[in-house]
Amino acid sequence: MNLLDLPPRRSLGRVHVPAVTLAHGGGGKAMKDLIDDVFVSAFCNAKAPDVLEDQARLDLAALARYGDRLAFTTDSFVVDPLFFPGGDIGKLAVCGTINDLAVGGAKPLYLSCAVVIEEGMPLDALRGIANSMAEAARMAGVRIVTGDTKVVQRGACDKLFITTTGIGVIPPQIDLGIHQIKPGDGILVNGLLGDHGAAILAARGDLALETEVASDCAALHGLIEALLRAAPGTRCIRDATRGGLATVLNEMAEASALSIEIDESATPLREEVRGFCEILGLDPLYLANEGKVVIAVPPAEIEAALAAMRAHPLGAGAALIGHASGGIPARVTMQTVFGGKRIVDMLIGEQLPRIC
Amino acid sequence: MNLLDLPPRRSLGRVHVPAVTLAHGGGGKAMKDLIDDVFVSAFCNAKAPDVLEDQARLDLAALARYGDRLAFTTDSFVVDPLFFPGGDIGKLAVCGTINDLAVGGAKPLYLSCAVVIEEGMPLDALRGIANSMAEAARMAGVRIVTGDTKVVQRGACDKLFITTTGIGVIPPQIDLGIHQIKPGDGILVNGLLGDHGAAILAARGDLALETEVASDCAALHGLIEALLRAAPGTRCIRDATRGGLATVLNEMAEASALSIEIDESATPLREEVRGFCEILGLDPLYLANEGKVVIAVPPAEIEAALAAMRAHPLGAGAALIGHASGGIPARVTMQTVFGGKRIVDMLIGEQLPRIC
Repeated sequence: MNLLDLPPRRSLGRVHVPAVTLAHGGGGKAMKDLIDDVFVSAFCNAKAPDVLEDQARLDLAALARYGDRLAFTTDSFVVDPLFFPGGDIGKLAVCGTINDLAVGGAKPLYLSCAVVIEEGMPLDALRGIANSMAEAARMAGVRIVTGDTKVVQRGACDKLFITTTGIGVIPPQIDLGIHQIKPGDGILVNGLLGDHGAAILAARGDLALETEVASDCAALHGLIEALLRAAPGTRCIRDATRGGLATVLNEMAEASALSIEIDESATPLREEVRGFCEILGLDPLYLANEGKVVIAVPPAEIEAALAAMRAHPLGAGAALIGHASGGIPARVTMQTVFGGKRIVDMLIGEQLPRIC
Repeated sequence: MNLLDLPPRRSLGRVHVPAVTLAHGGGGKAMKDLIDDVFVSAFCNAKAPDVLEDQARLDLAALARYGDRLAFTTDSFVVDPLFFPGGDIGKLAVCGTINDLAVGGAKPLYLSCAVVIEEGMPLDALRGIANSMAEAARMAGVRIVTGDTKVVQRGACDKLFITTTGIGVIPPQIDLGIHQIKPGDGILVNGLLGDHGAAILAARGDLALETEVASDCAALHGLIEALLRAAPGTRCIRDATRGGLATVLNEMAEASALSIEIDESATPLREEVRGFCEILGLDPLYLANEGKVVIAVPPAEIEAALAAMRAHPLGAGAALIGHASGGIPARVTMQTVFGGKRIVDMLIGEQLPRIC
């Protein structure tokens, strides 16, 4: 059955666009055809034709060669729009879950992929997103080994949601934890902040603002591996996604019962993002990132950590932005460029919805 | 912060209902409060206060004590309505993924839970669903160890979707596979078919039909363990969810290149479900189940398999419904109660949307 011939077709002007129908979610032949056409063809290759099953089976002895603990993490992606400068929901869903594994020191190995599709979703767009997932997984050396497909009627979801769940393995010597930060530790980031948030806001097009900023969406496990080799005493790593840098710093301060002070002039921000935020009244410290991590490193390893990150393509803009200290517990402050100090609070409300 | 005091409130007549807001998905304090209030309080207990993290870490040596292969499976649940006789979306999301692990012979151990919530979802309903997940997991002896929460604006999803991903371990001697069915194998089910589909259809209330049928939603790993102990030669087990018995039989026939014939008079169907289907013009063979498995067993073990299932509360209605044979490959037929034979095809279109 050729899915390009599937009724009903959606009319966009004079062009008919083959689209997903409720039949594709029914559990029968149409669903099998959709899964084969879109997902199996993207995720499986000749070398591993049998990987996409209802239930993936992974050899435990092979996993144990990488380390002693399994890392297990999940994320739903509901980003709007589905396509944006620098990526799409598929790339985001793969990189995001890889990063959630990597920040715990795990080597990312396997992903599952569950999709909820709105009836009427054009098949070409769905294929593009599946291919984007496959490409991101291939580049990162992870495999998408199992999945699920649901279709809901028009209006019951907004186009497409993707949930990826990741499995990785943590080597025995690694024990990262947000509560392990000590006074004097350096707080590092691997580059410019806020690009993802700015790119999504601009891509929505409802702000009458144009920016050239692309999402920083990237898989960071290679960078993190290099960092941990150079700075094995690293206390913890967090990805600064929803809620941005400010949220991660507050979580670090709270978990360690320490004070964290950062220096505005040392915090890497693109000029366009700074301007963009000024116009919209947003605080760039809360803008989401999809390729940035915040790292706490003991004083003796700060230089080594910076050098290792700067030698990696995804850490060229790495910077020491501040320090932890024994000041007021759980308080985050920023030395501003104007010479003052301000408190950087936990985000109370909601800055930008559906950013990831 | 008491979430019962959170603005905005949704007015239902004169009663104010505290509801989920976009701020609950922002990554900041409101989200942390929601997760603590609803999910952590339901999923974590005093004995294991630390289980719900961004990334769960599981000891590989402890996993290896159960077997040699990790089973890994995912499912999104979009059932409508959220609450129905016999269960709710939370119980379904836990039992469904446990069953996906168990049908491969795995011992289910850990689940992740990712939710996409529509703005305006009443907090009480969400708490009820989280508690239902916790209860189902506790009863089944599995732990929900990691999760994710996204909130989308009103209209961007229909109330609540839940994606659960499961990890289990398969003992070394077990090797179930749908392609392993041989001519002469008996085809068994563990009880009455179609209850879940009928219950959901009735619960939607848009058919002006009332039925007393409740969903059969249940975790089947205990039943399957008993079955495999009594009939270690079992070829394969499949849960008959979307697409029902007919879809599973067609998948079995196709994968094994055998013919499968079932006997209508031996196929367990509740009188109400049969009548319900007659009125609506539905075929009960395609109705979804959430607590039923289809099993292929070698001839010598059929009696032992039936006895083991009938001794279990979830297999009291177990029956031998047919056999595999070397007839026309991939064909499924049914001996009808009228003495004729009919072909049981793969479901082509879509019988019932959002059944799971």
